[in-house]
Amino acid sequence: ERDKYENNDVAGVVTGLAWTQVGGDILFIESILSKGKGNLNITGNLGKVMKESATIAMEYIKANAETLNLDPSVFDKYNVHIHVPEGATPKDGPSAGITMLTSLVSLFTQKKVKKSIAMTGEITLRGKVLPVGGIKEKILAAKRARIKEIILCEDNKRDIEEIKEEYLKGLTFHYVKEMSEVINIAITDEKVKNAKEL
Amino acid sequence: ERDKYENNDVAGVVTGLAWTQVGGDILFIESILSKGKGNLNITGNLGKVMKESATIAMEYIKANAETLNLDPSVFDKYNVHIHVPEGATPKDGPSAGITMLTSLVSLFTQKKVKKSIAMTGEITLRGKVLPVGGIKEKILAAKRARIKEIILCEDNKRDIEEIKEEYLKGLTFHYVKEMSEVINIAITDEKVKNAKEL
Amino acid sequence: ERDKYENNDVAGVVTGLAWTQVGGDILFIESILSKGKGNLNITGNLGKVMKESATIAMEYIKANAETLNLDPSVFDKYNVHIHVPEGATPKDGPSAGITMLTSLVSLFTQKKVKKSIAMTGEITLRGKVLPVGGIKEKILAAKRARIKEIILCEDNKRDIEEIKEEYLKGLTFHYVKEMSEVINIAITDEKVKNAKEL
Amino acid sequence: ERDKYENNDVAGVVTGLAWTQVGGDILFIESILSKGKGNLNITGNLGKVMKESATIAMEYIKANAETLNLDPSVFDKYNVHIHVPEGATPKDGPSAGITMLTSLVSLFTQKKVKKSIAMTGEITLRGKVLPVGGIKEKILAAKRARIKEIILCEDNKRDIEEIKEEYLKGLTFHYVKEMSEVINIAITDEKVKNAKEL
Amino acid sequence: ERDKYENNDVAGVVTGLAWTQVGGDILFIESILSKGKGNLNITGNLGKVMKESATIAMEYIKANAETLNLDPSVFDKYNVHIHVPEGATPKDGPSAGITMLTSLVSLFTQKKVKKSIAMTGEITLRGKVLPVGGIKEKILAAKRARIKEIILCEDNKRDIEEIKEEYLKGLTFHYVKEMSEVINIAITDEKVKNAKEL
Amino acid sequence: ERDKYENNDVAGVVTGLAWTQVGGDILFIESILSKGKGNLNITGNLGKVMKESATIAMEYIKANAETLNLDPSVFDKYNVHIHVPEGATPKDGPSAGITMLTSLVSLFTQKKVKKSIAMTGEITLRGKVLPVGGIKEKILAAKRARIKEIILCEDNKRDIEEIKEEYLKGLTFHYVKEMSEVINIAITDEKVKNAKEL
Ligand SMILES: [Ca+2]
Ligand SMILES: [Ca+2]
Ligand SMILES: [Ca+2]
Ligand SMILES: [Ca+2]
Ligand SMILES: [Ca+2]
Ligand SMILES: [Ca+2]
Ligand SMILES: [Ca+2]
Ligand SMILES: [Ca+2]
Ligand SMILES: [Ca+2]
Ligand SMILES: [Ca+2]
Ligand SMILES: [Ca+2]
Ligand SMILES: [Ca+2]
Repeated sequence: ERDKYENNDVAGVVTGLAWTQVGGDILFIESILSKGKGNLNITGNLGKVMKESATIAMEYIKANAETLNLDPSVFDKYNVHIHVPEGATPKDGPSAGITMLTSLVSLFTQKKVKKSIAMTGEITLRGKVLPVGGIKEKILAAKRARIKEIILCEDNKRDIEEIKEEYLKGLTFHYVKEMSEVINIAITDEKVKNAKEL
Repeated sequence: ERDKYENNDVAGVVTGLAWTQVGGDILFIESILSKGKGNLNITGNLGKVMKESATIAMEYIKANAETLNLDPSVFDKYNVHIHVPEGATPKDGPSAGITMLTSLVSLFTQKKVKKSIAMTGEITLRGKVLPVGGIKEKILAAKRARIKEIILCEDNKRDIEEIKEEYLKGLTFHYVKEMSEVINIAITDEKVKNAKEL
Repeated sequence: ERDKYENNDVAGVVTGLAWTQVGGDILFIESILSKGKGNLNITGNLGKVMKESATIAMEYIKANAETLNLDPSVFDKYNVHIHVPEGATPKDGPSAGITMLTSLVSLFTQKKVKKSIAMTGEITLRGKVLPVGGIKEKILAAKRARIKEIILCEDNKRDIEEIKEEYLKGLTFHYVKEMSEVINIAITDEKVKNAKEL
Repeated sequence: ERDKYENNDVAGVVTGLAWTQVGGDILFIESILSKGKGNLNITGNLGKVMKESATIAMEYIKANAETLNLDPSVFDKYNVHIHVPEGATPKDGPSAGITMLTSLVSLFTQKKVKKSIAMTGEITLRGKVLPVGGIKEKILAAKRARIKEIILCEDNKRDIEEIKEEYLKGLTFHYVKEMSEVINIAITDEKVKNAKEL
Repeated sequence: ERDKYENNDVAGVVTGLAWTQVGGDILFIESILSKGKGNLNITGNLGKVMKESATIAMEYIKANAETLNLDPSVFDKYNVHIHVPEGATPKDGPSAGITMLTSLVSLFTQKKVKKSIAMTGEITLRGKVLPVGGIKEKILAAKRARIKEIILCEDNKRDIEEIKEEYLKGLTFHYVKEMSEVINIAITDEKVKNAKEL
Repeated sequence: ERDKYENNDVAGVVTGLAWTQVGGDILFIESILSKGKGNLNITGNLGKVMKESATIAMEYIKANAETLNLDPSVFDKYNVHIHVPEGATPKDGPSAGITMLTSLVSLFTQKKVKKSIAMTGEITLRGKVLPVGGIKEKILAAKRARIKEIILCEDNKRDIEEIKEEYLKGLTFHYVKEMSEVINIAITDEKVKNAKEL
């Protein structure tokens, strides 16, 4: 049985799209802050490349703190923990990059993620979004999970165009080239309830 | 020969349910505090995923210290050690998550865990409880061990409904979706004897 | 050729019972203090589980410093080194737990261990002693080594009852459930000669 | 489908040439600065030798800070992160050395890299550029990606001379022996837009 | 070709006896001090057990500094490096223990090691010397190398008694039980030339 | 194609002799200093034993700073990076020891290495030079590379005597027993151009 989209009440929780041996699925990226010294902790039975995505997202945010309207001193005063349920499933690959980025931006801004949105795409340090594989399976899983909007790399548009239109009904696609576009689309202006003062 | 439920006299000791190659069993999660600098030490011949559960439980508690009525300064003044007997048996998987969470909340509040209760369920950073496997075997083991109440994920209810009713006699089930529910059910208002002043 | 019991003149040296591929044997747990910052160093060609036992013993002592009448500041001012000769033999498993506990309590109290005593049993953080395997072989080895008293877990009593009585002649057994009982039995009130002032 | 040359708008982004199992390709070296204590972070699914190249480039720049007109105090005030997309592809070998060097010099000087240039060559601590393999495949990939100028080690000239002239049309080659020549050719005098004040 | 005994001019250089696949050989343990913070560095292509011997020797000396007439503050002001040539040969096992102990005592006292002496024996934290294997081969190698005196564990006497007397001609044996005896026999009262003031 | 001798203009660059699967070759040891805290960084796709040689050379220099006329405070104020091109070739073994020693002495004294010299030999902490293998192949490679003088261990003289005299024409051999001899022969009195003030 597959996961369902939940809600966007909690800062740092974002819905990603995964491509597994048994087909597509959604996954959740969760991140939280605790008082600390700037450590980054990553769990969820992740492989090296997926852990690197978390590091890249974090470093990108640090390097672009000003543009993102973040006070750089928060990075030294909190530890960040990123987790990807479900622990029993080994996970790897770069495709959760934009989901991790969105999770961390939501966390540091304490802003809500757009409702019913999911995403998949590799990130790079220079701010680009790169295409990823398994798009068809991921889209089918997104529909089953009641996702309404999907962010993909511009270069994945051709993969969508090869899918029968009936499968795409009810889905809105956002094609992006830059990580800043992902943030613009996915992060709302609304603070989460009980937003932390960082 | 199987373990038996013991008692709830000591802070940080909680009964979990395990699914092993030779069937279900109960296991104990133990945790203690010693003066220190906030290190987390984990023993018991555990695999990577089970160690990650301990980290997640700890980070969740740190991030929700206020809600849990904990003074965040304790996290820097004590080391936490979590142990899962028996050392000769390798253990892994995410299912001890809620048991570890309960152990740590009991430890930091110095409150008694509810009597004759056991539990099994994966935890996530955003506060959800996820379903786990081996429910039938775990329930049988709980009965043998004289457990009276069991906490499970709501999504594991279907597994209980497939068990013959006679096996369930004498057991009360608590189905939960959130980690806060686990804490509400499992942690009593009563301090343990000789409770530490943290 | 097998080891023989030696004596109890030195703080931190305790006789354990081991079960090896060539039958039972006694082994020595040795521990010493040197000025330092609280590091725990473990040698003797030990596997992961046996190293964990040393950590558990150390953490238990730290967490119960008051009960054990120890000034907690010593833990920060000394390094502890635990060694298990003989280096050429790989060793693993949890059964040296109570022996390591006794070694460390003797070390920090600078008190003599009871004469001609040996022991085997797993320890847990909550203060329990758990049963271990290979009891028959260990008892025979203890006799050969001229041990007079043996500490075992209460749950290992059944293993002793299956041994022919003639093999048990001259041996006194102490069956325990709690780590505090081990300490009461094994640690004397007498300081070692040239006891260190900690 | 292969990557295309992008642009030189961002400090620290440089185009390299790679030789993969499926032929030549271009790759991007990206590097960014974030406030920190001088740590060097390297991602991109890289093997040991490729990571060493990054270390060598960094140490060369530190040791030659004066010649490069860099204030040595910046090395202690920032963390450097070097990333090589795409994360799904394992990469190794020394041939990205001069590309990494150029990336870091651009980063620390906040100067633009020359437009439409790509490069491949091993670096050494004493400032030499060493020849690398796969030149023919790399050149074809560079053309496909619309590269106009290429920096190679002098010792790779013979590899170019063995390529049919028609394949080389539109490409300008710079043959170098020293790392200082690479910097002179590849780093322009123009600051990037929104150059950071280090 | 085999090594020859050299001399005792340098502090920290001691001759040990090794048992290799091609028979017995002598080996040298070398140790030096450099200004530092008390780190212990061990090289020579050594396995885990042989490295543990170095740790045990070092900890024993620290714990018995007073008895050895050493100012404990030196342990924090210098780094110790122990090396066992020849780097191309992997080495392991506990039998270099007393040789390492002697090397470190010579180093910290800056006293000469007795001339023409070699040794082999395991050490323990409680100050015992334990027997080791390969005695016959080691003795033959010692003679070839022009060693005159040999320190062995008392329990290795039986191995010597099984060697034909003609092979033992010219060799004096010291059988010891305690590490303090090794030091008494092997360390002279004479300072090395240009002894360091520690 | 083989490497050629270059020059002695740069501090810390020394020519060694290597014995590879495809015969002898020369190699370069390069080392540089950067402001730091005394870290030693080693790159070049080196195995454990070759890395140990670098450590031994460094520790020997630290321990003999006075004799070498070096101010010991430099060791804490700079990081040392040693690199052995070419990164694509895995390298191991102790035979680069005297080359690394010479490189570091040149680096810390900022003195030129003797012109047209190459060397091969293992080093030890007590200051000895030990013989190494592959001498014939190394000598032929040295000639091809236009080396004029070679430093070898005294014990390698016999290997030279077995080489046909015509192959040795134009080569001068220095046979040494001590590391101090290597330094005397290989390090000139002339400072390198633009010598750093340490
Ligand atoms: Ca799922
Ligand atoms: Ca994703
Ligand atoms: Ca059990
Ligand atoms: Ca459980
Ligand atoms: Ca034994
Ligand atoms: Ca034992
Ligand atoms: Ca590509
Ligand atoms: Ca390249
Ligand atoms: Ca030898
Ligand atoms: Ca030896
Ligand atoms: Ca070469
Ligand atoms: Ca060499």
